[in-house]
Amino acid sequence: MIIVRFAGKFHPFLVYYKYMPTIVHKYGGTSVGTPEKIKNVAAKVKAVRDKGNNVVVIVSAMGHTTDELIDLMHKITTDPDPREYDMLVSTGEQVSAALLAMALQSINCPAVSLTGGQAGVETEDIYRKARIKNIKLDRVKKELKAGKVVVITGFQGIDSKGDIITIGRGGSDTSAVAIAAALKADVCDIYTDVDGVYTTDPRIVPEAKKIKSISYEEMLELASLGAQVLHPRSVECAMVYGIKIHLRSSTKDIEGTYIEEGKKMELKKAVRGVALDLEVAKVGILQVPDHPGTAAKLFKALADAKINVDMIIQSVHSVSAAADMAFTVNKTDAKKALEITQEIAKELKAEGAVSDTNVAKISIVGTGMISQPGVAARMFSSLSAAGINIEMISTSEIKISCVVKAAEGKKAVAVLHKEFELDK
Amino acid sequence: MIIVRFAGKFHPFLVYYKYMPTIVHKYGGTSVGTPEKIKNVAAKVKAVRDKGNNVVVIVSAMGHTTDELIDLMHKITTDPDPREYDMLVSTGEQVSAALLAMALQSINCPAVSLTGGQAGVETEDIYRKARIKNIKLDRVKKELKAGKVVVITGFQGIDSKGDIITIGRGGSDTSAVAIAAALKADVCDIYTDVDGVYTTDPRIVPEAKKIKSISYEEMLELASLGAQVLHPRSVECAMVYGIKIHLRSSTKDIEGTYIEEGKKMELKKAVRGVALDLEVAKVGILQVPDHPGTAAKLFKALADAKINVDMIIQSVHSVSAAADMAFTVNKTDAKKALEITQEIAKELKAEGAVSDTNVAKISIVGTGMISQPGVAARMFSSLSAAGINIEMISTSEIKISCVVKAAEGKKAVAVLHKEFELDK
Repeated sequence: MIIVRFAGKFHPFLVYYKYMPTIVHKYGGTSVGTPEKIKNVAAKVKAVRDKGNNVVVIVSAMGHTTDELIDLMHKITTDPDPREYDMLVSTGEQVSAALLAMALQSINCPAVSLTGGQAGVETEDIYRKARIKNIKLDRVKKELKAGKVVVITGFQGIDSKGDIITIGRGGSDTSAVAIAAALKADVCDIYTDVDGVYTTDPRIVPEAKKIKSISYEEMLELASLGAQVLHPRSVECAMVYGIKIHLRSSTKDIEGTYIEEGKKMELKKAVRGVALDLEVAKVGILQVPDHPGTAAKLFKALADAKINVDMIIQSVHSVSAAADMAFTVNKTDAKKALEITQEIAKELKAEGAVSDTNVAKISIVGTGMISQPGVAARMFSSLSAAGINIEMISTSEIKISCVVKAAEGKKAVAVLHKEFELDK
Repeated sequence: MIIVRFAGKFHPFLVYYKYMPTIVHKYGGTSVGTPEKIKNVAAKVKAVRDKGNNVVVIVSAMGHTTDELIDLMHKITTDPDPREYDMLVSTGEQVSAALLAMALQSINCPAVSLTGGQAGVETEDIYRKARIKNIKLDRVKKELKAGKVVVITGFQGIDSKGDIITIGRGGSDTSAVAIAAALKADVCDIYTDVDGVYTTDPRIVPEAKKIKSISYEEMLELASLGAQVLHPRSVECAMVYGIKIHLRSSTKDIEGTYIEEGKKMELKKAVRGVALDLEVAKVGILQVPDHPGTAAKLFKALADAKINVDMIIQSVHSVSAAADMAFTVNKTDAKKALEITQEIAKELKAEGAVSDTNVAKISIVGTGMISQPGVAARMFSSLSAAGINIEMISTSEIKISCVVKAAEGKKAVAVLHKEFELDK
């Protein structure tokens, strides 16, 4: 959970902000990947400012800068101290922020770059994956009042000791939304290399359609499910503070997708999108004697090893007092998860443990399915009609996920996209 | 002038420092140019710490990092805002500091990297060339007390607004000496790609000898005179606070040159070193009518244009009430200086102005010359005997400089090195 506190007392700038809309832009690493692209971003930002807006821009590191820094680091250590890791990689955003401020100034747009710390982004005292605790906007407001575009390094803040802290993957999106929330900005424009959220991956299903508006809840399910457009943390933050996100292309000047409070009329369509996640692995523990607390034991051991478990299925055998259990984890955790499960299997006197990394998770998402029964049945029968075998099923109020063989993932997406008429 | 303030009140750490010597190391960009070199530096630092010393390391940016950042910047602007310039280039030292801390940790030497700001280096509110005002050592002392090697980014600090400030060329040496002064360190080891101060450039005179110990004053004259080993600012700071500098090789484990309080016995040798400066240009203003205030007018105009004037000579013509004046400036300022001088010449109704960039300044330095008359005469006559024409002369208590034709600079160095028996 991300918490953004607001100063309770009356602030003279409040009046100012009332009359001049504040817009937060976020540009990802690809969008600021070269000096030429940085100049393009500067031109876009200036145009928005010239229309009479306060503009705050959050930037990621240029293109592959972070990866280059990590390569350099790996020549020294493969097990870096998290504090020093943050000290190192945070320089990437500082470079792009300074360059964007210069690019703005060179086209006569007053600008200033601020590190996360200078911008008042205060985080927990945890390196590499802290959450934002508080945003003190004094400096940002002062610079806006002076008529400047404020460029802020995404992905970072400072802790109570004054150390530089990065806020983990997807951090820049979250920085942008949190700063937008603190500034009570009108909209948070997240510029990226796709031009919006599609009903599914257009590379898999050419008929995929761009969604004009999607609710936080739906986007949250899609973002968590491998539609790698927006990090779920940023969507969650936007939902909590009611910040409208406009996800759009950094190169094409067209409307993208608004992520915002769900509207009633959108409930008509049961399913809004289909997501495919290939970064998934299945782990099973076989014939576990049926004692209370066995599941707790296993999942506590996995949690202790910081392994995120996604879907969990338990099936009771009809003929014995033993159960099979299966769960999914991220592919990178598969080996470790299998080892832990094997140990627990021994302890529990289960038959053994197995894993399968050759699977895919396919999900359909839509707030509409709450009010429309039968969505799950349609999903299962259409997959079955296409000859696709379902290995695991998991459901939430607005999402249904199935695990299938990896090789059938793309076909499954196409089948479901058609079944739920997302191309129409 | 660099000012380092000390907290007046009694501090519990003082007792601690009494019993554990504190040594400050400084490594330049070449010394930390590759991951391999960073590992070598880590090994050296650990060895010193393992002998029971507190070690603070000041690092420059890796090799050509700063130049690469500036190249990147030039693709966006050739006239960067000084504030954004500092924001950009300061990342170079942050990267090398973090990597060195990681390298130390990976050989089981506890370490922490700090930015200039985190280390409490407070500067004037001037971007790109601030002076250090104050060093608040709370964090550094805390980390030393915890048994860590403290790695600090050279060349930078923060101003009263919390902005990142670089302290100009030669900044890392000055950072090191100022931090050594604030810590009351026993010695400031400056590791570089030469192994000490020589009587002159060994590439010009193969007989040049390494100097074991040299006084601040002598080093100051040599540093200012193009013996590009140590920046004069750092020597000045060391002199003011009585910090002993050990200038030494980052690759060879041998004694270098100590820069310290001058000793009486050193006065025996009149001349300690010969320096050659090819980055010099001569500007002349001809036949200036002899009115009071003409020199003031010219040099004020040059100062207003931030041009540093070095030697100044005025010769009165015997037959007319007019004078010629000549002065030297850095070669990069020659064009601008000539333009200003031409304007002033017009105003003063002088005959005109000329410049010559094809000159060299050759200097001999030694505190001994105070007590030994005739040093200047020996210099002039030995140059004359070698057929070298002297165009300008300037003297101080411990230095004599002559301007000669650029082509004769190296020959002049060799002549003077032999004349003053520096090879013995």
